Amino acid sequence: MTQYHPLNEQEAIAIARNISGIFAAEGELSCREIGDGNLNLVFHVSQPSTGASVIVKQALPYAKVVGESWPLSLDRARIEGEALIIQDRLAPGLVPTVHQVDHDLAFTVMEDLSSHVIMRQGLIEGGVYPLFAEHISDFLAQTLFFTSDLGMSQQEKKLLSRSFVNPDLCKITEDLIFDHPYTNADTNSFDAHLQGEAERLWADAGLHLEVALLREKFLTHAQALLHGDLHTGSIFITEQSTKVIDPEFAYFGPIGFDIGAVIANLLLHYAGQEHWSADAKARAERRRYLTDTVRDIWIAFDRKFRALWQEHGTDRIAKTVGYEDDYMRRLLQDTAGFAGAKVVRRIVGLAHVADIDKIPDPAVRSKAQRMALAIGTALIKRNRQITSIEQIIEIADSVSEA
Amino acid sequence: MTQYHPLNEQEAIAIARNISGIFAAEGELSCREIGDGNLNLVFHVSQPSTGASVIVKQALPYAKVVGESWPLSLDRARIEGEALIIQDRLAPGLVPTVHQVDHDLAFTVMEDLSSHVIMRQGLIEGGVYPLFAEHISDFLAQTLFFTSDLGMSQQEKKLLSRSFVNPDLCKITEDLIFDHPYTNADTNSFDAHLQGEAERLWADAGLHLEVALLREKFLTHAQALLHGDLHTGSIFITEQSTKVIDPEFAYFGPIGFDIGAVIANLLLHYAGQEHWSADAKARAERRRYLTDTVRDIWIAFDRKFRALWQEHGTDRIAKTVGYEDDYMRRLLQDTAGFAGAKVVRRIVGLAHVADIDKIPDPAVRSKAQRMALAIGTALIKRNRQITSIEQIIEIADSVSEA
Repeated sequence: MTQYHPLNEQEAIAIARNISGIFAAEGELSCREIGDGNLNLVFHVSQPSTGASVIVKQALPYAKVVGESWPLSLDRARIEGEALIIQDRLAPGLVPTVHQVDHDLAFTVMEDLSSHVIMRQGLIEGGVYPLFAEHISDFLAQTLFFTSDLGMSQQEKKLLSRSFVNPDLCKITEDLIFDHPYTNADTNSFDAHLQGEAERLWADAGLHLEVALLREKFLTHAQALLHGDLHTGSIFITEQSTKVIDPEFAYFGPIGFDIGAVIANLLLHYAGQEHWSADAKARAERRRYLTDTVRDIWIAFDRKFRALWQEHGTDRIAKTVGYEDDYMRRLLQDTAGFAGAKVVRRIVGLAHVADIDKIPDPAVRSKAQRMALAIGTALIKRNRQITSIEQIIEIADSVSEA
Repeated sequence: MTQYHPLNEQEAIAIARNISGIFAAEGELSCREIGDGNLNLVFHVSQPSTGASVIVKQALPYAKVVGESWPLSLDRARIEGEALIIQDRLAPGLVPTVHQVDHDLAFTVMEDLSSHVIMRQGLIEGGVYPLFAEHISDFLAQTLFFTSDLGMSQQEKKLLSRSFVNPDLCKITEDLIFDHPYTNADTNSFDAHLQGEAERLWADAGLHLEVALLREKFLTHAQALLHGDLHTGSIFITEQSTKVIDPEFAYFGPIGFDIGAVIANLLLHYAGQEHWSADAKARAERRRYLTDTVRDIWIAFDRKFRALWQEHGTDRIAKTVGYEDDYMRRLLQDTAGFAGAKVVRRIVGLAHVADIDKIPDPAVRSKAQRMALAIGTALIKRNRQITSIEQIIEIADSVSEA
């Protein structure tokens, strides 16, 4: 048993060298630490003579966000490693391959994805990803169906859930998504010009009830093993390939939380088009691309999840007439509500997104922020009435056209 | 580490003797095994010279029901012991005191409740328990509130939930309550005169949808640490005292499942009054006593749970305007639905109740069985429309007066 300590580059090289089938026996390895240093060390270990490379990702025993630091369990490295292995089995090709998980030193050795870009950055640079809806709906349908009571033994699911009790990282979500944005919390962070908008959020009792109900689902509805943090910063992408990374927030929770995260981040980018598009025509086209993607994701997810249900449903009860339709309707409603909560927190809460925050002109940024808040709050308030993905798109379009 | 083996009476005496503060140092101990031998050995160890006594309850590694035997995890003894300790802390005086829990030998040494009777038998003998509604609503409010996200740290709840992953015993509930009664399953057991009623259950698509939704809640809604099997055979009672026993089905599940179990068993006894009451007047009075008890339990539970919420609510989100009312309405609806499912399974499923099965005259028994099925199915079908405990009582009364 090795005592935990932060790795240095020489240790990362030694760990990487030990993985079989990656590097040639001869040939030096070089290493750079490429993490942002907030939560993890990320070592990129490569062999110039062969071009081979791997990532050694090590959890740090604390989180640093906007200058603050708080302790964070190293167990999240185990959770991330075990979640990646399950996701790789259920959605092969859509997550990085894991070569090694070490619980004591809290590191994972995994496939290097340097050939991809982070999707958030790719979108900001105007990227179009024609296979993304197909890939992410595969990821969602496969990982969520086969870890739910619909797609695996209910008894094995209960045993598996013990490995994904994740209080530290769930606490971050419970506070930063379902609590702080709706009150005058110290952790909140927003431009001064949004003070009035923030105060309206803090005073909106109807909104708070819906958020409390969504939070209850996050706390109690153990539907499936979620990724738990599926924003566009957790997705590596090219035109041909999609790789979902960083499942350290994985736990058994409500399926709509993962789908909602993807849709929320597309809608945040949609609001950001106030700046990122060159003119009104380009903006309309780009927004159309984004809402088409939202629609394609839901429709493909719905089709694939239902197909898995029909083909691989665990038991006869799941085949009860009307049950599947009722379940999918509730998933869509949860998706809308969680998407709304994830949009709102990115405008007034602690952690923001570059799609909005990197807009240099305060007036344009303010317009994008207000649009995102209007979309987010409408999704939250109306989530229990949603019956079609078109209604989610209409909410975005009616706000942007207002 | 002691290897598991079934205890004999001499070993039970040695274990009991070892508990401090129960028996005088001098004075022989005597022992009888008083269990039914289906799931557990139950040793009653007493000291005739002092009148002191304790119970040594040991789990057997199998379950025997109607001649069949299947393996069952000994871990349920640990779960039962740990649940009793938590319940004793939260609802002191309402469960037997636990003196020792031994995981290897799967036994618990606990308070002897021989001065009490099993409530099911007490009711059959015409017993009236004026404090029962007060006691059981205390038990329900205290144990369920303080193990929910409303009444304990959400992070500690997640960690605690790991100790109550209970696949074997949940599987029994999932099969025998939420599956088999609604199909022509081998495990079902019912009087031949109910064949037509059973076939109607198996063909009722509207009923099946509600059962599927209830089963989903049982599988996924981890609201609080349930007793998990709270029928009147799990309650020891006198006019002055109520003791809830046998929480081996404990797990984190939907709160309404426990409340519904109590109400279901009162309503089964209500149906049984076709036989147990001497005449129509006595029957009406006895049924009035039972529905008054149902009403008193819900009203007291609702009042106490809300008072705990106001006084001990974990966080500000739970104080959101309208949230408490919405939550309590959903608890009542779940209570109705789960009560219905628990009534139905006792008529056509594997395990029955003496309140009905001990009715000697087949015609009278048939009338009671049909009444119970009508009450149970109505509760299931209407559960999502229930907004008042009076509607549950009206369902029972309208069936019995039909």
